Amino acid sequence: MSEPLEHRPTAPAAKGNRLDRWSQAYATRTRGMSASQIRALFAVASRPEVVSLAGGMPNLSALPMDAVAELVSSLVAERGATALQYGSGQGDPALRESICEVMAEEGISAHADEVVVTTGSQQALDLVTRVFCDPGDVVVAEAPSYVGALGVFRAYQADVVHTPMDADGLDVAALDATLVRLRQQGRTVKLLYTVPNHHNPAGVTLSAARRPQVVEVARRHGVLVLEDNPYGLLGFDAGPLPALRSLDSEGVVYLGSFSKTFAPGLRVGWALAPHAVREKLVLASESAILCPSMFGQMVVQQYLHTQDWRHQVKLFREVYRERRDALLTALSVHLPTATWTVPHGGFYVWARLPDPLDAQAMLARAVTARVAYVPGTAFFAQGSGDDVGRHHLRLSYCFPSPERITEGVRRLAGVVDDELELLDTFGPGATHDRHSADQLRAPGPDLR
Amino acid sequence: MSEPLEHRPTAPAAKGNRLDRWSQAYATRTRGMSASQIRALFAVASRPEVVSLAGGMPNLSALPMDAVAELVSSLVAERGATALQYGSGQGDPALRESICEVMAEEGISAHADEVVVTTGSQQALDLVTRVFCDPGDVVVAEAPSYVGALGVFRAYQADVVHTPMDADGLDVAALDATLVRLRQQGRTVKLLYTVPNHHNPAGVTLSAARRPQVVEVARRHGVLVLEDNPYGLLGFDAGPLPALRSLDSEGVVYLGSFSKTFAPGLRVGWALAPHAVREKLVLASESAILCPSMFGQMVVQQYLHTQDWRHQVKLFREVYRERRDALLTALSVHLPTATWTVPHGGFYVWARLPDPLDAQAMLARAVTARVAYVPGTAFFAQGSGDDVGRHHLRLSYCFPSPERITEGVRRLAGVVDDELELLDTFGPGATHDRHSADQLRAPGPDLR
Repeated sequence: MSEPLEHRPTAPAAKGNRLDRWSQAYATRTRGMSASQIRALFAVASRPEVVSLAGGMPNLSALPMDAVAELVSSLVAERGATALQYGSGQGDPALRESICEVMAEEGISAHADEVVVTTGSQQALDLVTRVFCDPGDVVVAEAPSYVGALGVFRAYQADVVHTPMDADGLDVAALDATLVRLRQQGRTVKLLYTVPNHHNPAGVTLSAARRPQVVEVARRHGVLVLEDNPYGLLGFDAGPLPALRSLDSEGVVYLGSFSKTFAPGLRVGWALAPHAVREKLVLASESAILCPSMFGQMVVQQYLHTQDWRHQVKLFREVYRERRDALLTALSVHLPTATWTVPHGGFYVWARLPDPLDAQAMLARAVTARVAYVPGTAFFAQGSGDDVGRHHLRLSYCFPSPERITEGVRRLAGVVDDELELLDTFGPGATHDRHSADQLRAPGPDLR
Repeated sequence: MSEPLEHRPTAPAAKGNRLDRWSQAYATRTRGMSASQIRALFAVASRPEVVSLAGGMPNLSALPMDAVAELVSSLVAERGATALQYGSGQGDPALRESICEVMAEEGISAHADEVVVTTGSQQALDLVTRVFCDPGDVVVAEAPSYVGALGVFRAYQADVVHTPMDADGLDVAALDATLVRLRQQGRTVKLLYTVPNHHNPAGVTLSAARRPQVVEVARRHGVLVLEDNPYGLLGFDAGPLPALRSLDSEGVVYLGSFSKTFAPGLRVGWALAPHAVREKLVLASESAILCPSMFGQMVVQQYLHTQDWRHQVKLFREVYRERRDALLTALSVHLPTATWTVPHGGFYVWARLPDPLDAQAMLARAVTARVAYVPGTAFFAQGSGDDVGRHHLRLSYCFPSPERITEGVRRLAGVVDDELELLDTFGPGATHDRHSADQLRAPGPDLR
């Protein structure tokens, strides 16, 4: 066709609105995105006078900062030209070797070539979803599930179908039934997303007996298992259970992270995947970020190489065990009318308020009383039903001191008592000051 | 519906193939992804005996490594608990302030709240495309274009339509005509992607006179400008021209990077966007990576704060000018039958081989002769026509020493002479050992 070269003054400008000239230009996936009102609350919650049982920030107090300062300095002085340069899309080979040693602690036998290093394991979640999920595909996930994973699935327009857990993790029969039902409905299930160890937010661990069963059910249904394992080495009582990946190297993509065993500020995580899948993940990662930070990778590698990292993980376990104990004791003493899970590792307790209290409705009052938590609704996908998770809350014990945790639970108990009294006096409706469930579901760093 | 709880042994397993159990499970966007055969060549090209004029690795020899070692050490010792922790999804506020000072060098007046820090500007490219592009949307881009951007647009299933440049950058009348034609065809154009300064791979700069015209044309057509500017401060002859963003704060998303002015190994880049768009970018980034590395950000911030970064950029310019001169001189001496652009900054020369030589077909022979380049075909989107870029090649002068650059061009000239002689003796077809164009188009770190 001929191409007119003159200007065409008739061509209209974009139709946006006064606040956003580009409001009509966004992709379909973007339209559901909106900043959650809960962010405003968390901005308040980050004030020092508030005890935050909301965030999932690791406690770095046990880290040997002087040794880390020394090793980063040597790294730049001796190998700065490599550490400050671009690296390969798949990640530093030396670090990938070390990652295989870390995974061996959980019974995984893997080759460095099967590993791709990512900008935190969140990026690995993003890449796996990108590689597998078309809009409308289904991801089966535990009820409740990690909020950051739900955000990724939503960003790729995948539908999350929750499947129940109990104190031993995924209910295998229910999982099978869920997959049968989805097949009967003609749905395409691409992933089974699971956090088998010290679950975020549920605080439970998949039992050893169920692990081969979960792998078998997924295999029988032709569904890839996405095993997200940031907390596996942080068990308080016994050594780690075998990873799902150790039971089926072709049927599982395993995600790991140094955020909880070393430091999240370096953003170094990884995926371990069957060879053909790993190849796709590397291509997807190169498109997304070119390559992970060589500097961050080499700091982790030097840390693993020069420090007794297993001993350090043991110190972290002690830090978290002490805080878990403080939280459980405080709940028993101050909130005996609530119920909760008893985590044997990791960062989180999943609690249920005494009926008929609504954790979401109560949050603003809790923050006013200088204690913060994450309402249970955040851990369910949109469309899970408006009531799902409303009576639950996630309590994180990872970051505050034991004394602050105790004080936080004391404040929380005061809010609960006030709410129950209000209900007693004015009946239901008196406490309904709640935000819409959707507003709580946008993932944010405070919810990790 | 009722949910049968018993196992269903009839459920079939996934239909994969012997090499990849998950070959049927990939998303549509993934099917086009494949590792390029050119990677094998570049693996050879990374051997020390090969002069690589292919890569875009910055030359870090001028960096004050001792000072950087000192500042990272102090950073960890004094503020390790912050530097090694999670940060905000939008990025460190102090760094965002400094980024505004850096952008002021190009006439940009911006507020730190409009900035989102990303894992290199590649992630910013990914996020902008994610936020705006549905499958089938059009991105208008220069011919040729940065291969890493083409990879991102392809990953989101957007169609790239190229529009021509000349020695002064984008041809404004042709751009207008392209946009008119696309409108007449009923296509939805979401972005105009442009590298206005020291273009990769073309080596040209958009003239000052054309800048307001480009912004005006885009605005008239309601198309958002995506201004990718990694090389803006690396001009050899004069100060930087005003950024497109300085001419229209609502119509341009600007991408910047510290990869070329400080160090790529930290993976710190950014996007500057109108407020509503910036909000979407932050949500998308939280979903993709939770937050950028605090450590990387604080290293950059400390570097900007404690070092004379403007002087350092001046040193980088000297390094690159010397190498550009070496390349241009060598081309004049050894390859007078080729033609090439004369860059006034940045990393790249865009050259055309004497007719009828094919840069793609010739690459394997060049690598055998121990010199590497990137064939021009890599810089055009799929479907641009099989011949587009075939006679061109990108020559990078950023990394090797001037002596090595001269030697590289000498070797390249030897290959060209041999090819011409073959053609003279045996006629066309004698040199056609080429890889398919598509295999050259997967982005990879070597092609940045």
